[in-house]
Amino acid sequence: MKDIVVKKLKERGASIEEMAELVFELQKDYLDITMDEAIQNVKGVLDKREVQNAILTGLELDRLAEEGLIEEPLLSIIQNDKSLYGIDEVLALSITNVYGSIGFTNFGYLDKIKIGIIGKVDKLGKTTDQVHTFLDDLISGIVAAACARIAHSHGDN
Amino acid sequence: MKDIVVKKLKERGASIEEMAELVFELQKDYLDITMDEAIQNVKGVLDKREVQNAILTGLELDRLAEEGLIEEPLLSIIQNDKSLYGIDEVLALSITNVYGSIGFTNFGYLDKIKIGIIGKVDKLGKTTDQVHTFLDDLISGIVAAACARIAHSHGDN
Amino acid sequence: MKDIVVKKLKERGASIEEMAELVFELQKDYLDITMDEAIQNVKGVLDKREVQNAILTGLELDRLAEEGLIEEPLLSIIQNDKSLYGIDEVLALSITNVYGSIGFTNFGYLDKIKIGIIGKVDKLGKTTDQVHTFLDDLISGIVAAACARIAHSHGDN
Amino acid sequence: MKDIVVKKLKERGASIEEMAELVFELQKDYLDITMDEAIQNVKGVLDKREVQNAILTGLELDRLAEEGLIEEPLLSIIQNDKSLYGIDEVLALSITNVYGSIGFTNFGYLDKIKIGIIGKVDKLGKTTDQVHTFLDDLISGIVAAACARIAHSHGDN
Repeated sequence: MKDIVVKKLKERGASIEEMAELVFELQKDYLDITMDEAIQNVKGVLDKREVQNAILTGLELDRLAEEGLIEEPLLSIIQNDKSLYGIDEVLALSITNVYGSIGFTNFGYLDKIKIGIIGKVDKLGKTTDQVHTFLDDLISGIVAAACARIAHSHGDN
Repeated sequence: MKDIVVKKLKERGASIEEMAELVFELQKDYLDITMDEAIQNVKGVLDKREVQNAILTGLELDRLAEEGLIEEPLLSIIQNDKSLYGIDEVLALSITNVYGSIGFTNFGYLDKIKIGIIGKVDKLGKTTDQVHTFLDDLISGIVAAACARIAHSHGDN
Repeated sequence: MKDIVVKKLKERGASIEEMAELVFELQKDYLDITMDEAIQNVKGVLDKREVQNAILTGLELDRLAEEGLIEEPLLSIIQNDKSLYGIDEVLALSITNVYGSIGFTNFGYLDKIKIGIIGKVDKLGKTTDQVHTFLDDLISGIVAAACARIAHSHGDN
Repeated sequence: MKDIVVKKLKERGASIEEMAELVFELQKDYLDITMDEAIQNVKGVLDKREVQNAILTGLELDRLAEEGLIEEPLLSIIQNDKSLYGIDEVLALSITNVYGSIGFTNFGYLDKIKIGIIGKVDKLGKTTDQVHTFLDDLISGIVAAACARIAHSHGDN
């Protein structure tokens, strides 16, 4: 199942490497980490069943909205990434949650400043027919979870 | 938007009255409430935007799974209501959350014992081609939220 | 740190064995499990840092309330386990959350029916000078998390 | 109870005005709001029982840690605001949650960049004998909740 999740994320626009770059960026000032460690921790997050289910569900909602297969009024809400929708954040936080509450801060920060692949995907959602209402939050959730995973493994601070 | 939500819940199999019956059932031993108060509180829950978004999203995933429009492996996971899926609980708890953590207990209890309309819908999901993976959890979330709403309004105990 | 957590839970009234009995009770109809497997999974839950922090914080609030060291009005709220308090559920759910949303149902069920050690502790809180406002929810959270841990390890259903 | 909460927040170092300034700062680029509207929305958040309970509990844990009344190892964890603790975020998010998931982003952003009163309080916690492990997260939670409250009241985007 993990291979399917990685493949679908890639198809929708997010590679493990691009997510690992954000992990590295967020952690490099606090910890002595390498890009390889960042990649391993993103992969570690994607091993979790709960995470896989949240990703598959969110990506599918984006795809179905893109193809117009969702009924109104939900279709317009997802296509236009309405700020009061909130279900994208709910799914993303169920990813971060798996490594405890310490990931919430990075999730919110990423979702606000939209750096790297998050910004790229968000912009595509706003300027093309692509729908990435869930994808950008899912990436923020995965990256924040990977940071929390690293913090736990580095232990006692 | 509330009217659409009530209509879709009804179409998928759950009326306000059937949900209010569960609210009444859960609260009658603790509080002096009427069926009318139970109904008003279910309606009050359905007024909230966050609640409406969770319901529309969950019901749409059930419908899309029923019509086979979701891609594998997610299609089979939702069609078979796999116990490790968890996204149905995630959406339902985002409903209960709106009235704080005091609703979690009733949510879990309802989702476990599946009384009334919850059991009816769950059974239809398991014995027919209907898919109610999200609906039964959404009902539990709505009923638990209505109970929490009543508890808050009855105040100081 | 895990040893301290186990010791404090014991001092406050809950042993690993008593919690494992509830895990066994909840799972025996669904899975072929042994008491030893139940015990190992409770221990596995108690290995997690997030879980340890929630337990230490909740037990300390119970102890401080018991000794009257908390200021009013919070002291009375915790001493009397007011139903609108909710922070006990919040801490307990942060335990269950670590194994994803599939544990929420068992948490709520346990917190409602209060079987075994949960009922024992709840009754002591209500009939003696002991304060167990957090302890009973923490136990429900630990047991529900252990059940979710087992479900994940038994995999694909 | 609201008056007590406002008074305790003030005593521990955070006034309604200082929190409202952050609300204004975060919203001014998106909405046409006034400082008065920001203040009214912070007050609106503090009206909620769940919010009051989270604040009272968090502030009390800070005070008890400051006075050395909490047992080890929890005392050192709270006094040193250890990054793996996480219970401060758990309480803060139970505040934000009351207005749905749309507040999570602002919570994380504030908790990361620590502007205004949040930075002031965080610095005092790190450079004096004062303990503000919970306070800075609680403020982030209150401000993020007030922003979500405003977004809901401004409606349909």
